[in-house]
Amino acid sequence: MIGIDDFIKRLDGLDFGGLYGEDFLLTWEKSADEISAVFTVADALRRLRENNLSARVFQSGLGISVFRDNSTRTRFSFTGACNLLGLAVQDLDEGKSQIAHGETLRETANMVSFMADVIGIRDDMYIGKGNAYMRALSQAVWEGNQEGILEQRPMVVNLQCDIDHPTQTMADMAHIIHHFGGVENLKGRKIAMTWAYSPSYGKPLSVPQGVIGLMTRFGMEVALAHPPGYGIMSSVEKVAEGNAARYGGTFSKSLSMAEAFADADIVYPKSWAPYAAMEKRTDLYGNRDLEGIEKLEKELLAQNGAHKDWECTEDLMKTTRDGKALYLHCLPADISGLSCKEGEVAAPVFERYRSLLYKQAGYKPYIIAAMIFLGKFKHPQRILARLAEKGECRLGWV
Amino acid sequence: MIGIDDFIKRLDGLDFGGLYGEDFLLTWEKSADEISAVFTVADALRRLRENNLSARVFQSGLGISVFRDNSTRTRFSFTGACNLLGLAVQDLDEGKSQIAHGETLRETANMVSFMADVIGIRDDMYIGKGNAYMRALSQAVWEGNQEGILEQRPMVVNLQCDIDHPTQTMADMAHIIHHFGGVENLKGRKIAMTWAYSPSYGKPLSVPQGVIGLMTRFGMEVALAHPPGYGIMSSVEKVAEGNAARYGGTFSKSLSMAEAFADADIVYPKSWAPYAAMEKRTDLYGNRDLEGIEKLEKELLAQNGAHKDWECTEDLMKTTRDGKALYLHCLPADISGLSCKEGEVAAPVFERYRSLLYKQAGYKPYIIAAMIFLGKFKHPQRILARLAEKGECRLGWV
Amino acid sequence: MIGIDDFIKRLDGLDFGGLYGEDFLLTWEKSADEISAVFTVADALRRLRENNLSARVFQSGLGISVFRDNSTRTRFSFTGACNLLGLAVQDLDEGKSQIAHGETLRETANMVSFMADVIGIRDDMYIGKGNAYMRALSQAVWEGNQEGILEQRPMVVNLQCDIDHPTQTMADMAHIIHHFGGVENLKGRKIAMTWAYSPSYGKPLSVPQGVIGLMTRFGMEVALAHPPGYGIMSSVEKVAEGNAARYGGTFSKSLSMAEAFADADIVYPKSWAPYAAMEKRTDLYGNRDLEGIEKLEKELLAQNGAHKDWECTEDLMKTTRDGKALYLHCLPADISGLSCKEGEVAAPVFERYRSLLYKQAGYKPYIIAAMIFLGKFKHPQRILARLAEKGECRLGWV
Repeated sequence: MIGIDDFIKRLDGLDFGGLYGEDFLLTWEKSADEISAVFTVADALRRLRENNLSARVFQSGLGISVFRDNSTRTRFSFTGACNLLGLAVQDLDEGKSQIAHGETLRETANMVSFMADVIGIRDDMYIGKGNAYMRALSQAVWEGNQEGILEQRPMVVNLQCDIDHPTQTMADMAHIIHHFGGVENLKGRKIAMTWAYSPSYGKPLSVPQGVIGLMTRFGMEVALAHPPGYGIMSSVEKVAEGNAARYGGTFSKSLSMAEAFADADIVYPKSWAPYAAMEKRTDLYGNRDLEGIEKLEKELLAQNGAHKDWECTEDLMKTTRDGKALYLHCLPADISGLSCKEGEVAAPVFERYRSLLYKQAGYKPYIIAAMIFLGKFKHPQRILARLAEKGECRLGWV
Repeated sequence: MIGIDDFIKRLDGLDFGGLYGEDFLLTWEKSADEISAVFTVADALRRLRENNLSARVFQSGLGISVFRDNSTRTRFSFTGACNLLGLAVQDLDEGKSQIAHGETLRETANMVSFMADVIGIRDDMYIGKGNAYMRALSQAVWEGNQEGILEQRPMVVNLQCDIDHPTQTMADMAHIIHHFGGVENLKGRKIAMTWAYSPSYGKPLSVPQGVIGLMTRFGMEVALAHPPGYGIMSSVEKVAEGNAARYGGTFSKSLSMAEAFADADIVYPKSWAPYAAMEKRTDLYGNRDLEGIEKLEKELLAQNGAHKDWECTEDLMKTTRDGKALYLHCLPADISGLSCKEGEVAAPVFERYRSLLYKQAGYKPYIIAAMIFLGKFKHPQRILARLAEKGECRLGWV
Repeated sequence: MIGIDDFIKRLDGLDFGGLYGEDFLLTWEKSADEISAVFTVADALRRLRENNLSARVFQSGLGISVFRDNSTRTRFSFTGACNLLGLAVQDLDEGKSQIAHGETLRETANMVSFMADVIGIRDDMYIGKGNAYMRALSQAVWEGNQEGILEQRPMVVNLQCDIDHPTQTMADMAHIIHHFGGVENLKGRKIAMTWAYSPSYGKPLSVPQGVIGLMTRFGMEVALAHPPGYGIMSSVEKVAEGNAARYGGTFSKSLSMAEAFADADIVYPKSWAPYAAMEKRTDLYGNRDLEGIEKLEKELLAQNGAHKDWECTEDLMKTTRDGKALYLHCLPADISGLSCKEGEVAAPVFERYRSLLYKQAGYKPYIIAAMIFLGKFKHPQRILARLAEKGECRLGWV
């Protein structure tokens, strides 16, 4: 009645078995079919909820959240996703500065996981650390499960690391797919992932990296642009190049925002810190060189300041396809004259896209829920069919 | 069997459709029938729980709590109410000092609400801010829902603002109704809402304002008394006057605790800060005038100190109706010789009423749950009937 | 099918009615049958979960956690236990230093308990305070229930106090029972509960006290050993002596780690603070004598330093029964050369037992859940039978 069958049919045509029992750490570790399956299940879960049908598939179980950086929207997305499926969330507050060494991590991972089905981690502050931490923790609970310590193995979901931000970029992509009326309409479209000026420094690289690592899988022209010295992780650029070749799109780099915006169907202007500076910063923190950190921060701010012209203005938007590219941002944006004096985007541009931006963000809880769903259920089609068939209301009775 | 039918019948006789889909911000925005419906559903939910019947009406969903002031009892009441109905609570910790400007509030409101059914807010610190914040947030999620960002609109429940404290005063009123054996027995009874001395300053005005705004709707004689200079919001006094005229009671003001207590059936002696001083304080905080704040606080303490005779003593209690008025307090009270040297109430008076006071507080979780229930369900009678019929145990099986 | 009947049959043979409606504060307040019932229900709940069957017996209800000392593993164990049974956890954050006086405690206890089914408390910092606090709180909610303030009475579960640590030692004991293939195989076995060196001071006494208070009930030879001056609570030693006499085991004390380890089947080397010093420390805190506290801490560190030879080494392990005693620790351990320079245990010993140690910890959530289960259900056999019969999956459908 509400079309869950269509989603099930779509899943039947996909080979996504590799998601079952696995973590979700980097989008490029997943196959095209697996990525599609996540979008499909996210849509199906949303369809259920929008029709007031319960998607509660856990009668008990914990989702553990580990936020090694402040978070509001990701926290609520993770909580919302867990709650939708029936999991209660328990936060693990480790203290922000301490990066646990091997032994302690192994112990903590097991100690908190006796009743855990999923562990969502945000650890995006230090280059070379975040994703490594997730893998170390995952390894620990995998061993714990092998050794009979844990009767189940909690899956690890990357809620943002130093390399990728899969729940963000998958939500972004779901938004793009819906906006353009289907993944089949994306071939040949141009997306500009560009740096933008911000009065703050040290923003993570995970979004631009995640975007070029994911968006190159849909036959699109992915154009990365940033000022000189703002390069990102070269290994992820390699991923993007490989994807473009494999999936029939392109990946290009330039030092011009205008060039990237020209005739773009989608623009994603967003500030980030230079990769080299972030590496340096990680070392300085490692050595507790506070003086060095302060000096670096001043340099970074000065460096940013030289590129205030990297702003998403109305004039720039006019140069996009028919003057109406889809503007994306992971939020919160630095809005010129509103949240800061000079920032990433002109206020009128932001305001014009505000409603769409919030919709973009609205995909995240469903994407996270879908990742958990597919990580936990071998036969998700059956579960979806049962949920639709059972028809239990999420709220009240009809 | 357990009398849920009686509550349903009572609801059938009330016109409370205006509660559905709306926030609960001020009691005087609600009709008499709507207020009655909240009491009725609160009693019904309590009856279910006391008979070990589940009142779980949400299979998933979030209740968001925003406490911009410290809270233990309101936090537990909100959590208890949400939990009773099946909602999980996620706290939004904004930081206490920052009053979000328009744009950010709009964004935050939407970002946390994708899976939210209710948002409970306590923001009572600054005159002119708390209720305004709630309305701004409500407006933001209303727009979000209109624009298709939020598939549902979370209702906002006022857990205490600068103007009213509806969950407190409704709980107080439920206690009064039960104590006197029904709302029909309240006509002509006198309730004294009086200031009382406290060694601390700056207590919110929401309780006295909320009390005169609500209690004047039941045909009672509502007597407000405070020392000179301790006036409350005049707009709420106007509400009280209007209510008294409309519902056949009285609203009087005096500068004498003795006068208010004389022959009172109910007394509610409680400290608060002068409205004018609170306005001044809000401005000082707005200007970050720390010196001015310190000076004002000293003045307020000195001003309080001149009125130590405003204490609820045994002698004063003897002057009430038959010497046994019902003593109320929202807790915690400043108890002379117990929690402070000199305070709002003499220790023997407090001790004599302690058990009743705790019962008074016990209505709050059910009042909050009833507000949510009526805000979320168009046909609450049907839901209550189904809960009773289904007979699922809250705890175990019988 | 999955053997729940066996557990039910075992329960049928036990007289554990005394657990119903009661707190769980000290193991030695419980009968042998009651202790057995906890182990049995813990195993049954685990069996259900390991077979993907839901053990959700609460449709709503709160578990309140009160941690007056930092905690990660106990927090997750309590949350996991509550969640397994269907309770949501709400933390009561009182502030660490303030020990509430009678009146306030009575009020707080009632205010947070309107919807609470269980209150888990960790309060192990001050001699003479922790267990007393639990009893005072329990008394408050008992009175609240008697007076009709609380419709139900939340049970209090001791998550560690100054006297006992029942959820830890019961988990330890469950591990021992399973390791040795049944409680019937424990008679005559020797367990060494010994002090061990740690570079930190002031570790609680609840584990050694809890261990000698519980392990003396199974016919084992319980050998307590510590350096001169590291005595524990004499009242608990009396309990151990009484148990040994009653249950046909022994309880011995010595000042030699080697003596305790000799031919031991089980060893539990762990640091703790001298009882006398902890008493003194409590007084110093009471008097806010910061200088005195600092001085005491220095003395304690120096005193510890004189006993660095109290380390669980491979050589010492070789002196145990067949050189392969079961090594226990409540975790985290001070591991020499790993988490500290010199500590409680040599790294190779710890590493060899790491997997077993984690399994030991894994019993705790089930032990806590069993305590709640037996405290809340008069006929736990019926509930277990219904859970098995109903066969609702914890996760998905099969």
